[in-house]
Amino acid sequence: MADMTDHPGYDARKDDFLRRLRRIEGQARGLQRMVDEDKYCIDILTQVSAMTSALESVALGLLDDHLHHCVVGAAAAGGPEAEQKLAEASAAIARLVRS
Amino acid sequence: MADMTDHPGYDARKDDFLRRLRRIEGQARGLQRMVDEDKYCIDILTQVSAMTSALESVALGLLDDHLHHCVVGAAAAGGPEAEQKLAEASAAIARLVRS
Amino acid sequence: MADMTDHPGYDARKDDFLRRLRRIEGQARGLQRMVDEDKYCIDILTQVSAMTSALESVALGLLDDHLHHCVVGAAAAGGPEAEQKLAEASAAIARLVRS
Amino acid sequence: MADMTDHPGYDARKDDFLRRLRRIEGQARGLQRMVDEDKYCIDILTQVSAMTSALESVALGLLDDHLHHCVVGAAAAGGPEAEQKLAEASAAIARLVRS
Repeated sequence: MADMTDHPGYDARKDDFLRRLRRIEGQARGLQRMVDEDKYCIDILTQVSAMTSALESVALGLLDDHLHHCVVGAAAAGGPEAEQKLAEASAAIARLVRS
Repeated sequence: MADMTDHPGYDARKDDFLRRLRRIEGQARGLQRMVDEDKYCIDILTQVSAMTSALESVALGLLDDHLHHCVVGAAAAGGPEAEQKLAEASAAIARLVRS
Repeated sequence: MADMTDHPGYDARKDDFLRRLRRIEGQARGLQRMVDEDKYCIDILTQVSAMTSALESVALGLLDDHLHHCVVGAAAAGGPEAEQKLAEASAAIARLVRS
Repeated sequence: MADMTDHPGYDARKDDFLRRLRRIEGQARGLQRMVDEDKYCIDILTQVSAMTSALESVALGLLDDHLHHCVVGAAAAGGPEAEQKLAEASAAIARLVRS
């Protein structure tokens, strides 16, 4: 499974994730501008909710790729590494659900 | 209530919110770097969860200030504007809870 | 504000809330039946998500009524009680957003 | 993989899940009693948050068992069923994160 170490699960969609994260960075800058210009609280909150959804969507995409590549790879290989990958994935899912 | 129009509810904590949003913008850049450098999916997801929590925390702060200033101001003044402010606040809370 | 003490904010929609909570109780029983009958995990998870949404919806309704009645009443009266009601409402919102 | 069809992923922890779901059913009944007795909105909301957390915890447990058993089993077997199981799991995770 040398392949697994060299390329992360999201490799094929790397450009897509980078593009989405750049847009999220832009949303963070837009929020600063809104606060700086004393925009109405509710309008800022609407943008925060949009940014949270965009971030959640990136997380779900990364997790999906992770399950498809790393977890499946480890499951096919079996052994203690498979167990560790599953425990890691479950912990990451729990953090997402609770955050 | 000219005051309410000129200064948003978060006015007193504006610098604090700007500082937190700059840090969130930095987290978005850090995530791009991690993806670009092929970091491990689970480590990226951990950072996404941290960023989501930071964003949620900003949202709760803005909402708290909004309730303290705009909603209380409108409630004291009464009339249809009070009702509109409450409906807006409830809708913003629902978006946060569901996002 | 004796009225505020005698009747909670959700008084006018009490029957509606009771009906929705009975349905949620039924969903909890339905989940036990599914687990008992060894139903497929994913189908159970779909029902859990539906139940969580129903519960969230009750929470948002209760919060909306609370803001309209208790918080507005306290804000109109002013003083330390108003501040306490707002702090309580903000803490309840934070628990909902984070749960 | 006849085993996979006969017993769901949560089989070993079935009694634990049933016990937790019975407690959640009890929380739903407790909420009805609180509403019926005109308890204070904020106290009801605190119980709703506790119930939502308990439900989320059951969901994360079921999902963890599902990944360990069904998804790993399908991944080891490979083929189109593996892909379908992963797509299902990802969709269930997305519903949980967004609910």
